[in-house]
Amino acid sequence: MRVERQRLMRAVVMQDGRLRVEEIAEPVPGSGEVLVEVLACGICGSDKSCLVHGDGFNRAALGAFGTPMLDLSKPIVFGHEFVAEIVSYGPDTERKLPPGTRVVSMPILMREQPVLLGFGGTDTPGAYAQRMVLSEALLIPVPDQMSTDVAALTEPLAVALRSLNRAETAVGDVPLVLGCGPIGLAVIVLLKARGVGPIVAADLSPERRAFALKLGADVAVDPTVDSPYQAWMQAAATDDPALMSPPTAVAGRLPLRPTVGFECTGAPGLLQQMISGAPPGSRIAVAGINFGSDTVEPAQAIVKELDLRFCLYYSPEEFARTLELLASGDIDPTPLITGRVGLDDVADAFERLDTSPTDAKILIDASL
Amino acid sequence: MRVERQRLMRAVVMQDGRLRVEEIAEPVPGSGEVLVEVLACGICGSDKSCLVHGDGFNRAALGAFGTPMLDLSKPIVFGHEFVAEIVSYGPDTERKLPPGTRVVSMPILMREQPVLLGFGGTDTPGAYAQRMVLSEALLIPVPDQMSTDVAALTEPLAVALRSLNRAETAVGDVPLVLGCGPIGLAVIVLLKARGVGPIVAADLSPERRAFALKLGADVAVDPTVDSPYQAWMQAAATDDPALMSPPTAVAGRLPLRPTVGFECTGAPGLLQQMISGAPPGSRIAVAGINFGSDTVEPAQAIVKELDLRFCLYYSPEEFARTLELLASGDIDPTPLITGRVGLDDVADAFERLDTSPTDAKILIDASL
Repeated sequence: MRVERQRLMRAVVMQDGRLRVEEIAEPVPGSGEVLVEVLACGICGSDKSCLVHGDGFNRAALGAFGTPMLDLSKPIVFGHEFVAEIVSYGPDTERKLPPGTRVVSMPILMREQPVLLGFGGTDTPGAYAQRMVLSEALLIPVPDQMSTDVAALTEPLAVALRSLNRAETAVGDVPLVLGCGPIGLAVIVLLKARGVGPIVAADLSPERRAFALKLGADVAVDPTVDSPYQAWMQAAATDDPALMSPPTAVAGRLPLRPTVGFECTGAPGLLQQMISGAPPGSRIAVAGINFGSDTVEPAQAIVKELDLRFCLYYSPEEFARTLELLASGDIDPTPLITGRVGLDDVADAFERLDTSPTDAKILIDASL
Repeated sequence: MRVERQRLMRAVVMQDGRLRVEEIAEPVPGSGEVLVEVLACGICGSDKSCLVHGDGFNRAALGAFGTPMLDLSKPIVFGHEFVAEIVSYGPDTERKLPPGTRVVSMPILMREQPVLLGFGGTDTPGAYAQRMVLSEALLIPVPDQMSTDVAALTEPLAVALRSLNRAETAVGDVPLVLGCGPIGLAVIVLLKARGVGPIVAADLSPERRAFALKLGADVAVDPTVDSPYQAWMQAAATDDPALMSPPTAVAGRLPLRPTVGFECTGAPGLLQQMISGAPPGSRIAVAGINFGSDTVEPAQAIVKELDLRFCLYYSPEEFARTLELLASGDIDPTPLITGRVGLDDVADAFERLDTSPTDAKILIDASL
C-alpha cells in the first residue's frame, strides 16, 4: 500500500465574510497543470468586494448567466494578481520552462469546468497562499530584468488596458478618469504610456488625487469643489477643426476633441452623473463595479449618442501585451505599490485599504 | 413704397399638446435657402412623443446640453421625414437643381443658430405644411425611378441604418430586434438587406409580429409566451468554431455567433431586460427613447462586458447612403406605408397610430 503524506501549506481562507490564516492541503497539479510557489500577490478591490458583497457578485452572475460565481457555502482562497515560481509539473505537461522560472498567468485553471483562480475553493486556491496550481498552457515567463513586484501588477494593468481598448482610446482623445483607486490609477498610467492627454482625473481624496498627478494625470479635480465634467470639457476644448470630434446628432460639430470616459468608482449614481456630464459622442468605459441597482436617464444618453462599454477582464492577448509593456520599461507603475504584508497581516491590509487613502496596491509576500 | 402681400399656407400647428390646421405665413427662404413644396411627410413616433412628452424631450436636452430642445411656449410645426419639390431660391444660392426637382434633405436648417426642422416654430416650419424652407447645401435630388413614397422613408431608414452602424452590425452577427414599430421594422429591413440573420424580432402585438415576418424577420416572438432572449440564443447557437463569437471574460468561449441587440421600444424596464437577457459580449443599439428614469443592474452588464450604444440620428453620409440603398431597389420598404392622410386628418392619424396595430408609417399628403 502506497502511503502519501499530504503536504500542508499556509493560506488566507475566507469564510462567512472573514479572513483567517489556516493550514490547508497543498493542491496537486492535475493533467496539464503545474505546481507553483507564490512570490507575490496583489490585493484587489474585487477581493474586498467579495468579502463584503459576495452575494452581490453572485446576484450579478445569476442574473447574467443563471449560475452563481462563488460558492459561499465553502471556504474560498482569494488572489488572482500573482507572480509565482515553478515548483513541479503534473502529468501530461510539456515542461518547457524549468522549475525555478518566474511566471505570470491569467487566473484561470483550464479544466473541463474552468476555475476562476482567486474565487475558488481550497482545492484550487488563489494566490493568498504559499502555493497554487496553474494551467501550463497559460504560463508566461517573467523577463529576467523585470522585478517580481512589477510583474505582480500585470493583472490589474491588464484590466486597465482592457478598458482603454474597449473605449477604443486613441491619441487625440481627451480622457476623464473618475476614481483614482488602483484601477483608475492604472488607467492613468496606460493613458500616459499611449500618449493620450491631457488626462483629467477626479477623486474625493486629496491623497488619491496626488497619486493621480504623480502617475501622469494633468488635472486632478476635487468633485466637491469643481465639476470634473467642466474640467474635462476645458481640457478637450480646441479651435482646430482637424482635432475636433466628428459632428454629433443634435449638438452638431463641437469645438471639442473626442472624449473618452473611465468610470472606475462603481459608486451608485456615478453612471448617470457620467451620462449627464459627458460631452456628446463620448465613449465611456465602465470598469467600476456597482452591485446595486442604479438609476439612469436613457433619453440623455440618446440625445448625446453615448457609448457605455462595460469592462471586467481582458483577453489573453491583452494580458500578454501588458506584460510586454511593463517589461519595456516605458511605464513605471511602481508608485502604485504602497505596502507589503505577510499572510498573517492580510486581514489588517484589507482594513488599511478601506481607510487609508495613502494606499493603492498592497502586495502579499507569503515569505514574510 | 414696396408692398408685399404675405402669402399664406396651410399647416398643422401643435400647441399645448393639441394639433390644429391653421393658415400661417409661408416661410421666406433666407441666404443659401430654398422654398420647397412638400410632396409627402411621414408621421414619426418622436412627433407623437413631442405632443405628449415635449417636456420630456426638453428635460433630456436640458440635462444633456443645458438648453431645451423645443420652445413649448410657441406653436410648433412638426414634420422631419419629407420629400419636397423645389419652388424658388433665396439669395446667395447656386441653383444647380431646377425648380420642380424632387429633393430630400436632412431636417436641419443651417443657420448661425441651426434649426432642427420639424421641432421649430411657424417661421421655420417642418413638413406638416404645404411649404417649407431648406438649406440648399443639404438638398439631395431624388432619382427619377424612385417613388415619392419610398423617398419619404429615407429619414426613418437613416435612423435605422445609424443603429446598425453604431452596433457595428456585420454579416455573421445574429440580431434581436425588440419592438416592431416603424424603427424596429426599418432595422429589420436593413438587416435583411445587409445579409445579417437569422433575425429574431419581438413585439407584444400579433399584427406587428406579422409585419416583422413580412419585412424579413425569421422568428417573431410574443414575449408574453416565449422569451425573446431564449429565441435569440437558439438562433445564435453554432457548433462551428469559425463562426463563434470571440471568447468573453467570465463566460469563456460560447457556442454562439456574435450577437447584436436593437432596443426599439423605449419602454421602461426593457434596457435592464436586455442587459439581463443578452448573451455576453453583445453590442446593443438603444434607439427607443424612454423619457423617464430607468433602473439597471450595472454589475450584470459588467460581468457580460456588454456595449450599450445609444442612437438618435445619422450622419450626412448615412442619410445619403440610405437614399442610395432605397434607389438601388435592393430593399422594399413599401409594406411599412400603411396609410395616407391630408393635413386635416393628421390629428386622427396620430390617434390611429396609437391604437391601431395594423399601422406602421402614415404619410401626410397636403394635396389631399
